[in-house]
Amino acid sequence: MASWEPRLLVVGTGLIGTSVGLAASRAGADVRLYDTDPDRLAVAVAAGAGGAAESFTDAAEEIDLAVVAVPPARTGAVVVELLAALPHAVVTHVSSVASLPQAEVEASTADVARFVGGHPIAGRELSGPAHATGDLLRERPWVVIPAPGSAAGAVQAVTDLAAACGALPVRLDAATHDALLARLSHVPQLVASALAASLSVLSDAEAALAGTGIRDTTRLADSDPQLWAEIVAANAAPVATALRDVVESLAAIAGALDGAADADVGAAVRSLLERGRAGRALLPGKHGGAPIAVVVVEVVIPDRPGALADLLGAVAAEEVNLEDLRVEHAPGQPLGVAQLMVAPVAAEALASALRASGWSVSTNSGAR
Amino acid sequence: MASWEPRLLVVGTGLIGTSVGLAASRAGADVRLYDTDPDRLAVAVAAGAGGAAESFTDAAEEIDLAVVAVPPARTGAVVVELLAALPHAVVTHVSSVASLPQAEVEASTADVARFVGGHPIAGRELSGPAHATGDLLRERPWVVIPAPGSAAGAVQAVTDLAAACGALPVRLDAATHDALLARLSHVPQLVASALAASLSVLSDAEAALAGTGIRDTTRLADSDPQLWAEIVAANAAPVATALRDVVESLAAIAGALDGAADADVGAAVRSLLERGRAGRALLPGKHGGAPIAVVVVEVVIPDRPGALADLLGAVAAEEVNLEDLRVEHAPGQPLGVAQLMVAPVAAEALASALRASGWSVSTNSGAR
Repeated sequence: MASWEPRLLVVGTGLIGTSVGLAASRAGADVRLYDTDPDRLAVAVAAGAGGAAESFTDAAEEIDLAVVAVPPARTGAVVVELLAALPHAVVTHVSSVASLPQAEVEASTADVARFVGGHPIAGRELSGPAHATGDLLRERPWVVIPAPGSAAGAVQAVTDLAAACGALPVRLDAATHDALLARLSHVPQLVASALAASLSVLSDAEAALAGTGIRDTTRLADSDPQLWAEIVAANAAPVATALRDVVESLAAIAGALDGAADADVGAAVRSLLERGRAGRALLPGKHGGAPIAVVVVEVVIPDRPGALADLLGAVAAEEVNLEDLRVEHAPGQPLGVAQLMVAPVAAEALASALRASGWSVSTNSGAR
Repeated sequence: MASWEPRLLVVGTGLIGTSVGLAASRAGADVRLYDTDPDRLAVAVAAGAGGAAESFTDAAEEIDLAVVAVPPARTGAVVVELLAALPHAVVTHVSSVASLPQAEVEASTADVARFVGGHPIAGRELSGPAHATGDLLRERPWVVIPAPGSAAGAVQAVTDLAAACGALPVRLDAATHDALLARLSHVPQLVASALAASLSVLSDAEAALAGTGIRDTTRLADSDPQLWAEIVAANAAPVATALRDVVESLAAIAGALDGAADADVGAAVRSLLERGRAGRALLPGKHGGAPIAVVVVEVVIPDRPGALADLLGAVAAEEVNLEDLRVEHAPGQPLGVAQLMVAPVAAEALASALRASGWSVSTNSGAR
């Protein structure tokens, strides 16, 4: 885009709305922000996401593009209000659910040609404008979701917004989007929460034996209950379909455990694990391509101030390209282990150099 | 321990057996290794985990302590054989399941006083002796599991082995261990696999929209199907109990989605998320203590050779103590984001210094 200078209205200054305002402002848009909560609006304005609008209809004639970033249950109604209030604006949203707001627009008297759904697939466990960043959407998919009646120019305007924010526009229809997100996001949230809920019978001492597996598997369980109540209710049928797949897989195992011979239990579990590996293999590796071969160089990190930074300095001094990096802490103890993932060709030299500097190092190869 | 120099026999030179051999050798034990697979045995010997034994009964009179590190379905039988073959040895195992081998020993004519169960809670997605390390067990819990008939000296010998390997001995009875591991490990494995299996209907292009949430939640799904078939079959009743908790939570949501009003769906989901947060809060933070307050400094990493290493070098130069570190890669694109987690007091100075060096930085506070 040679010049991208739209007048943008962002309604709702939570994590995503404020991040859109920050990124769009940086890219050249003239951004107005509106929120029913004046404190939240003030935080977003102070962060540099745009100027405060007094109302929806503030300078209504001038707005080119409006982004609705309110909770899912309110999204459709606010989109309809804005289509009526802003005579020239394209109106989009950032909701995790697309079919429900689209149906609400189509059932209204609003001008559906100026409506295009949208969903930047980004987020974090933290919410609110104070956690927004101009980079939150960068290099993330932003699904652009035309309704059957959306005008081509409106679709282009939303695609341009996504690109201006540094995101990767991907076009899907609402039903495809909702079915996909049910599997990739909504059901994983429910499963992580159900698994974490099953831990509540444990004592602190028992829970202290938890390893990294259960921690990774339940990480999503820290999410906001009210937000997820709305998302799941708004995407009920696709979530029910995808959730039933998971429930049936697990119920089949539970059933086998209740009565079957060990051999039958084993066969059922083996089959589930094999189906799981096949599904897992579909997920993108680094760079969205096939998994790449790396060697993991593991280094023990003593718990003295600056120890991890010292290690990273030593790695940097070797001029090795780290493909990825992970730090694990031992339960109940200060020591940790850093996993440095590097190309096979670089691993031996790195391990030797670190050992020579006194680090406790081991190497292991694997694909990821 | 002033001097720890037992004659140790490790039967089974997979990931855990070889790691025990490596750690125990380093700590002063005279380690013999035995495996029915001569290639696997050769790898373990070459790694320095100990000397090769020709058979179970090789120097049987001399063995003080034997560690059975074979698949769960074989563990009890091998323990019984060793108790008979080694007249003076304490015999332990490293199985993820404790009740079944204990029952097999108690049902045999073997000397149960010399038997003590054990389970070092450590592992990785990779298996086999080539991935073993002397640090795998370091600072990890090692559950010591006396049978009712175990002699006090035998329990002490296994506790000493755990400590010598750098692990943290924790004492539990077999039933408590198995119920706990069902919740902390066996059910999470099944849930991760079932969730990953539900993705198998997706195309590659659809799966490319996966975010970090589904990747974390399904990470365990890469595990070995045969090993897990044996573990689950060997711990059937506790796994069934814990699995039913998860299935019932999810089935209740699926049921609500099928017929209930939106408000009831929302209430059911909110309740599940709240129970999940309560369970999740039991898991240990860093150092096994309460979660600590950190600020996340996020830095965009361009995809040029050495970029991450350059960043880490810049962090090291600031002499900031990194509490933790995580690297995320954007789907389909080379850019990544490094999350540097530091004490609140250090965050601003680090962010400023990195910005001054040309890095794209944002900061966010949070508890973890």
